[in-house]
Amino acid sequence: MQELSLSEVGKAAERIRGHAHITPLFSSRLLDAAAGNRIFCKGEHLQRVGAFKFRGALNAVSRLSPSQIAHGLVTQSSGNHAQALALVGKLHGVQVHIVMPRQAPEVKKAAVVSYGAQIHWCDTAQSDRESKLEEVMHATRACYIPPYDHPDIIAGQGTVALEMLDQIDDLDALVAPVGGGGLLSGVALAAKSLNPGLKVYGAEPEGADDAARSLQQGKRLPQVNPITIADGLRTSLGNWTWPLVRDYVDDIITVNDIAILNAMKFAWGHMKQIVEPSGAVALASVMDESFKARHADERVGLVLSGGNVSLDFFESTSNLDAHPALG
Amino acid sequence: MQELSLSEVGKAAERIRGHAHITPLFSSRLLDAAAGNRIFCKGEHLQRVGAFKFRGALNAVSRLSPSQIAHGLVTQSSGNHAQALALVGKLHGVQVHIVMPRQAPEVKKAAVVSYGAQIHWCDTAQSDRESKLEEVMHATRACYIPPYDHPDIIAGQGTVALEMLDQIDDLDALVAPVGGGGLLSGVALAAKSLNPGLKVYGAEPEGADDAARSLQQGKRLPQVNPITIADGLRTSLGNWTWPLVRDYVDDIITVNDIAILNAMKFAWGHMKQIVEPSGAVALASVMDESFKARHADERVGLVLSGGNVSLDFFESTSNLDAHPALG
Repeated sequence: MQELSLSEVGKAAERIRGHAHITPLFSSRLLDAAAGNRIFCKGEHLQRVGAFKFRGALNAVSRLSPSQIAHGLVTQSSGNHAQALALVGKLHGVQVHIVMPRQAPEVKKAAVVSYGAQIHWCDTAQSDRESKLEEVMHATRACYIPPYDHPDIIAGQGTVALEMLDQIDDLDALVAPVGGGGLLSGVALAAKSLNPGLKVYGAEPEGADDAARSLQQGKRLPQVNPITIADGLRTSLGNWTWPLVRDYVDDIITVNDIAILNAMKFAWGHMKQIVEPSGAVALASVMDESFKARHADERVGLVLSGGNVSLDFFESTSNLDAHPALG
Repeated sequence: MQELSLSEVGKAAERIRGHAHITPLFSSRLLDAAAGNRIFCKGEHLQRVGAFKFRGALNAVSRLSPSQIAHGLVTQSSGNHAQALALVGKLHGVQVHIVMPRQAPEVKKAAVVSYGAQIHWCDTAQSDRESKLEEVMHATRACYIPPYDHPDIIAGQGTVALEMLDQIDDLDALVAPVGGGGLLSGVALAAKSLNPGLKVYGAEPEGADDAARSLQQGKRLPQVNPITIADGLRTSLGNWTWPLVRDYVDDIITVNDIAILNAMKFAWGHMKQIVEPSGAVALASVMDESFKARHADERVGLVLSGGNVSLDFFESTSNLDAHPALG
């Protein structure tokens, strides 16, 4: 397998410049007090399509020739990558096909449709997703753009770290959420290459902790039955993302769904920023005791993303009745 | 009555520097498309206490001597000025008394209490508010800090315009919400003094349109029975704010509650920013046809503030069942 390097991330940054937003940072005195560190939140929920996924999808598609994408683009995704590819396809003027589980959040389905993409329904089981994807690829001859396990996707997501190192002086640590690992591996590769002394952490839901288990045991252990409210982080590390996580990430901080919901509530209530459950996992991790035990009074950057969630989230019985402790 | 000038706004900016946030701007391609102009939203919902009110309260209290505030501070407010004064009092180490209608939003009551202020309940009727205020002032000898009708409050709120003119090049128009007029009069005074060619508009709920009627008729016509979801904008222009609005504001754009709720939904759903109904009124106004008829393809700044609203707002039956058109 070819090696992915910092220079690929730099090239991705050039490709997406002017198309992707340079997202702002958010900080909060209350958050600093709660976390015991100076926290800088990279607002990737304000990226186009509401998530960092736009960077990777744009970078990957930008590298393809017109003839390669003439029959359109296809992917399978529960949400934000789907939206990202839908918009990238629209910008390139080609049809996008999305294989999506029927159970995906309504707000994400609606967004994909609004960008003009065609949805092909499947079930959540990996086998069903894959067979549906093959079926669509065969029928349409569209070009497959994977959601995370591809060097061009990883390099695109890594541009988040380049911006953060540019925007924040004297960073001591960086935290990014981890599902399939596209963001975390790209961020870790870029950040560690530029500053080997910087600590890089993944933030992962307890109920989908394959990255934590894999890093602990030194071998890739895919997730069998993920159970977490963070619907964007139920996937497992892939062939490309696992070696990068293994080599460049210092540790994975796991947080449970209560902590994720509390962090989400903090973002909405105190920071006035709407993030989805997956988007609040890194925020939850820096408020976790295990993180505070490693860093105190330091400068910590984290990625807040995405922001695609129903506005009545905090009234949905399935979200709150299951967690009476949240009150 | 003494004249208020730009130099007072400049002095206020110096007084609050380092204590109030220099809030960021937000923009959105979708918003620009919907408004037909290039829109820059000043994120005062990210100001301390979640609203621009902190600027005025801090400026006003900073001008008082220790002996003047030795018996504490008192005000009457339905919300954001109360929170602002509560925090300013806490920073100065003095007790704050808030005369507040029982009907004020729970989230605002809770915030005032969290800053250590003491609430004295009253009814919404102006006469009841005033008699309760006098009672508390008499009993405590606390120093009264009015919510809007005072030159130091107006000068403090005017600092919003100084920042906007600094942050946005070549502005064609500025829009600020208007209730009692503290923000609008300060913004208009500062902006017109610096750039007489700039258009300055107030944005006002139809159900509390005393500023629009007053400006139209050239005389102050207080609001008798305000009916609007924008709870922060039910007040009427005062002795200080009215002449400034009359002399420096080009026009008032009125919007109905449906438009306000749609703008709020736009801010939450597309901009991922949590603003309260009053905080979305300027946003609603730039999407109104009457505004688009005056400005097209121009550069327009507006104030987004405040952000103090219950997170389950969009599920509350009183907010949405009354407006089935919102769907």
